[in-house]
Amino acid sequence: MMNDRPIILVTNDDGINAPGIRALVEAVKDLGEVVVVAPDSPQSGMGHAITIGSPLRLEKVSVFEGIQSWQCSGTPADCVKLAKDKILHRKADICVSGINHGANHSINVIYSGTMSAAMEAAIEGIPSVGFSLLDFKFDADFTLAKTVVYDLVKRMLANPMPEHTLLNVNVPVVEAKDFKGMKICRQAHAKWEENFDQRTDPRGRDYYWMVGKFNNMDTGTNTDVEALAAGYASVVPIKIDFTDYAMKALLEKEWNDMA
Amino acid sequence: MMNDRPIILVTNDDGINAPGIRALVEAVKDLGEVVVVAPDSPQSGMGHAITIGSPLRLEKVSVFEGIQSWQCSGTPADCVKLAKDKILHRKADICVSGINHGANHSINVIYSGTMSAAMEAAIEGIPSVGFSLLDFKFDADFTLAKTVVYDLVKRMLANPMPEHTLLNVNVPVVEAKDFKGMKICRQAHAKWEENFDQRTDPRGRDYYWMVGKFNNMDTGTNTDVEALAAGYASVVPIKIDFTDYAMKALLEKEWNDMA
Repeated sequence: MMNDRPIILVTNDDGINAPGIRALVEAVKDLGEVVVVAPDSPQSGMGHAITIGSPLRLEKVSVFEGIQSWQCSGTPADCVKLAKDKILHRKADICVSGINHGANHSINVIYSGTMSAAMEAAIEGIPSVGFSLLDFKFDADFTLAKTVVYDLVKRMLANPMPEHTLLNVNVPVVEAKDFKGMKICRQAHAKWEENFDQRTDPRGRDYYWMVGKFNNMDTGTNTDVEALAAGYASVVPIKIDFTDYAMKALLEKEWNDMA
Repeated sequence: MMNDRPIILVTNDDGINAPGIRALVEAVKDLGEVVVVAPDSPQSGMGHAITIGSPLRLEKVSVFEGIQSWQCSGTPADCVKLAKDKILHRKADICVSGINHGANHSINVIYSGTMSAAMEAAIEGIPSVGFSLLDFKFDADFTLAKTVVYDLVKRMLANPMPEHTLLNVNVPVVEAKDFKGMKICRQAHAKWEENFDQRTDPRGRDYYWMVGKFNNMDTGTNTDVEALAAGYASVVPIKIDFTDYAMKALLEKEWNDMA
């Protein structure tokens, strides 16, 4: 399996049979030796879940012609962990996750299984990137997204990023002629306003469907949401140190003053 | 239910019947009006998972004497979302999550269901904190942890934190006389080295158990891991903007130079 071409680990959260991961494989297959390790079923909204209370299955499958691929019963983060330990037996040279069917800009980075796979790779020290298209339809058109993937992965292989960082890339739904290119951005300050849809089952017990309305609260510039609305693909560098250093300094002062 | 005492929303990821959440309820019950909304079963390692592909159940239960409590079929993040929309019909004044049976310092903040509940509350603009004890045993001694919870929650109610930030608090296993107090820290740079335990089921198919060895790669000072080893309870302020601003500046320069 190994040769001197870079090893490109491909995963996602929509499952190995989603059109988005097929588009991703097609986009990167000329850039290195592609190995796919992806969930055997959809895992959207799994955040950074890992499977510790139950065992995992891992099966070699033939889903992509000429590409080695495995499906895993676990989460996107599980796939990245298993790929290193049981399939590659070394670190991949790059990990690409997606292409997600639906947006993962702004606060969605926290809920996204696509991004959690990329985050897990970054923890391992593998340069990584998650790709999402702002169209959640199963038959979405990934043509433009594939171009973005190719250009960015080629660039990342040529110019290694600092260790333990990753990129969150979202691609707008625009005509090719209206596409403005890639733009480095920050995560917009936004959230989902949930309004659970309450229903009653045939046995008279209540149940709830989560229904959310996206609320962009960001009034500043240079956000991913803003870039996407203007026809750019947004590229947000993400770090895995979640410490709030400004607040750390504030609390140290406050606590000392109170002592 | 409502009066002029602060509403304290209590949740966790070990499930509503875990001793840790009972210790947490006992620790805060004199500080406000406590409302418990917690998973009906253990959810460890769920990260920031949310339930979007299946409906949720929410049942009023009598688990804590004199305390209103609900169990939910979803994740810790689901519990926080449901609490606001279907139970409190307003923002809680503070959200406390835990007390987790086991450490959530350093990189564990990413995998932790305990911390994801606190993070979800912070997204909602609720001051929040996740508590973990460095003892994963079911019958762990929460006496010291309860003191830490009481002192910190009292302080947080008196001195509101900036919006959309939260605290990650870990409590060491030490004798009360050796406890050094609380210390503001940063997240240590660390990771888990996975080594999957491969087994064969009675039908001859392989399966895998995740087994991890913790590896602290941090050589600097002022980390949560260091503070805990020295007998402090570590307090790490966490933010929900994951943008790596240093890398953003770097990439902007690099991409401009290449253009």
